[in-house]
Amino acid sequence: MLQGNAIIGQSGGPTSVINASLAGIIEAARGQAPIGRTLGMRFGIEGFMRGEVLDLGEENPATIAALRTTPSSALGSCRHKLKEADFPKILEVLRNFNIRYFFLIGGNDTMDTIHRVEAYCHTQGYDLIGVGVPKTVDNDLCGTDHTPGFGSAGRYVALSVKQAGMLARDMKRVDQFVVFQTVGRSSGWLPAAAALAKVNEDDAPHIILLPERAFDQDRFLADVKRYYDRFGWCSIVCGEGVCYADGMPISASRVTDKFSNVEFGAMGGTSAAMMLHRMIHAAFGWRGEFQVCESLQMCASDRVHSEDAEEAYACGRRAVELALAGTSGVMVSIIRDSNDPYHWSLGTTPLAEVALGAKPMPNNFINDEGNFVTPECMAYLKPLIGSLPEYVRLTAGLLI
Amino acid sequence: MLQGNAIIGQSGGPTSVINASLAGIIEAARGQAPIGRTLGMRFGIEGFMRGEVLDLGEENPATIAALRTTPSSALGSCRHKLKEADFPKILEVLRNFNIRYFFLIGGNDTMDTIHRVEAYCHTQGYDLIGVGVPKTVDNDLCGTDHTPGFGSAGRYVALSVKQAGMLARDMKRVDQFVVFQTVGRSSGWLPAAAALAKVNEDDAPHIILLPERAFDQDRFLADVKRYYDRFGWCSIVCGEGVCYADGMPISASRVTDKFSNVEFGAMGGTSAAMMLHRMIHAAFGWRGEFQVCESLQMCASDRVHSEDAEEAYACGRRAVELALAGTSGVMVSIIRDSNDPYHWSLGTTPLAEVALGAKPMPNNFINDEGNFVTPECMAYLKPLIGSLPEYVRLTAGLLI
Repeated sequence: MLQGNAIIGQSGGPTSVINASLAGIIEAARGQAPIGRTLGMRFGIEGFMRGEVLDLGEENPATIAALRTTPSSALGSCRHKLKEADFPKILEVLRNFNIRYFFLIGGNDTMDTIHRVEAYCHTQGYDLIGVGVPKTVDNDLCGTDHTPGFGSAGRYVALSVKQAGMLARDMKRVDQFVVFQTVGRSSGWLPAAAALAKVNEDDAPHIILLPERAFDQDRFLADVKRYYDRFGWCSIVCGEGVCYADGMPISASRVTDKFSNVEFGAMGGTSAAMMLHRMIHAAFGWRGEFQVCESLQMCASDRVHSEDAEEAYACGRRAVELALAGTSGVMVSIIRDSNDPYHWSLGTTPLAEVALGAKPMPNNFINDEGNFVTPECMAYLKPLIGSLPEYVRLTAGLLI
Repeated sequence: MLQGNAIIGQSGGPTSVINASLAGIIEAARGQAPIGRTLGMRFGIEGFMRGEVLDLGEENPATIAALRTTPSSALGSCRHKLKEADFPKILEVLRNFNIRYFFLIGGNDTMDTIHRVEAYCHTQGYDLIGVGVPKTVDNDLCGTDHTPGFGSAGRYVALSVKQAGMLARDMKRVDQFVVFQTVGRSSGWLPAAAALAKVNEDDAPHIILLPERAFDQDRFLADVKRYYDRFGWCSIVCGEGVCYADGMPISASRVTDKFSNVEFGAMGGTSAAMMLHRMIHAAFGWRGEFQVCESLQMCASDRVHSEDAEEAYACGRRAVELALAGTSGVMVSIIRDSNDPYHWSLGTTPLAEVALGAKPMPNNFINDEGNFVTPECMAYLKPLIGSLPEYVRLTAGLLI
């Protein structure tokens, strides 16, 4: 069996449970004879190439255990697309630290990194076992039912939309609409998760805008007006990456105003929700608000869905078990064995398949109008997000 | 003793615990001989004037009990500044429903409403007992140590800033700054609450901008640069109402760009955090993000500080006890009997004193530079926000 040190890296944006995967790897590697030391990359592959490496064996086991409830990427993260020139440098650092087990926790770019590093090492006669652990709040990884981190981010979204929806309902004589923006540039899994906030017909959300469907301002405003006419208010959830039919993001303004048509993105900072807010205000004169939580939905460890944290931890452990069994070039995957009751198990997917691209929502998860999700989608999402708190509403009718 | 029905109204923006106060009033009034029926105003005094009144006795007691953990304003709310012409209409509805006990849960405008309604009824020979229950996430009510709802909103802010700060620290090689905006137009209590997120010197937040201090762009950018030079990233928290020295809100752009100086407020929707984001990006070219949660911080019932919910409920109950003892024209107040350990009791403040205006942060709660709070402020805030989760960080040094 391959003898050497192991290294772990975290890559891309974090999730609320990415450190649970880190803890899983560290704890599963502890005491395994083939693995000498378990090392960590400081700031991902970018730091690694500069030789920024930690000995995770120096950490108190209690600290490692507490990573399971600690948000963010404890090792530090990066976004680095590998260039050909990077490979010799990476191999040099691998050799320097006698690293034979290579674990990265990340999304499809990260899986591509493991895949290419492993292949390069092979051509150079350096034995390296590389296993990927899936992670992304966007849920857009191929080859797995879902990704650790998505459920907790989706829970943050659904909780926020549910609570803010009740507020909007009770304040409708002051403000008439609320727009909540989720992260997720190319896929609509996170805005879709908001649908679980809805129990009664008038509950938020009313409209969900997904990057999978082109935005049509006239149709959107007609939808908003319809909900307003019915309930006196309207709740809209949008993915940050929603675009017009020609591919232009809605976060780049096309609202005609008395000043000019300004491209806000170019000025450093804007948002899709703000643009929708402006459109609605311009069309109807209503008051409302836009909510842009950005990375807060990736790190809210007090809103983690416990099953998600369990899965993230288990994926980390499984990566080590696979590596010790000599399996390389795969990502740990989650298999949904049963939906109700929810049961899952772990499998593997070749890295090359994961690296191919982002997984959009399937067509049968989006309604014909393209402004909400289907019951099939909600059935898929429900066990990943978990039960939401039940709130009451008063039911007494008006006395006169 | 005055015999008649009681009415309860909720006013202004909600808090996460405003329904706990509602439950307190309803439950304390139940079975009290002088009080016939307990009624509710639909959409506050505005709905009341249209005769929109509910019989809360029709509600299941289990529903009333569950209000203690249900966010938003279950009765519906409004923002209505009373006009002279409103008083005869209000008296008419009071008479129609034989209302003798008048309870409103709200901020200083609401206390002013009770005060003026009670005074008007007196001049018309109509006996009415009016008691106010304090509520506002802004914590700017005079005559009480703090207001129910503030602690939970502050907890939302502190949790968000803590979690997003860890994320920013771990992603500093990708994004260099994060700006979090709180609600609160004229007082800085909510941005101040973010300070409790800080345990270590490099923890978020680094800079807190308070409406009590004029904004100076040069000084601000110099502060940002100083933290960036020291830690590689910077966390900024700002109150939405922060203004330049001349009183112009920073949410109205003064950033000079290649297009024009646009007044975004006029276009319906902008934010102070977005403007700070633009300033930093324009000055240094760094990447970063702005987070605008708006009313999410007023309704996150899963992030309520339990003590805050207890206080809100107790204030509701006390209002009824006061009214039944014949006390009128007061607001229930919270008295801090001891800070460590934290003990509180309830008192009263004349409505006229509360209605006078908003309570800013005292000078000794703000540091000399005007960019953070003092230890005195943090000691005041700590018991109101409660303990935050403890997260770990890795401490192993780099191997080379």
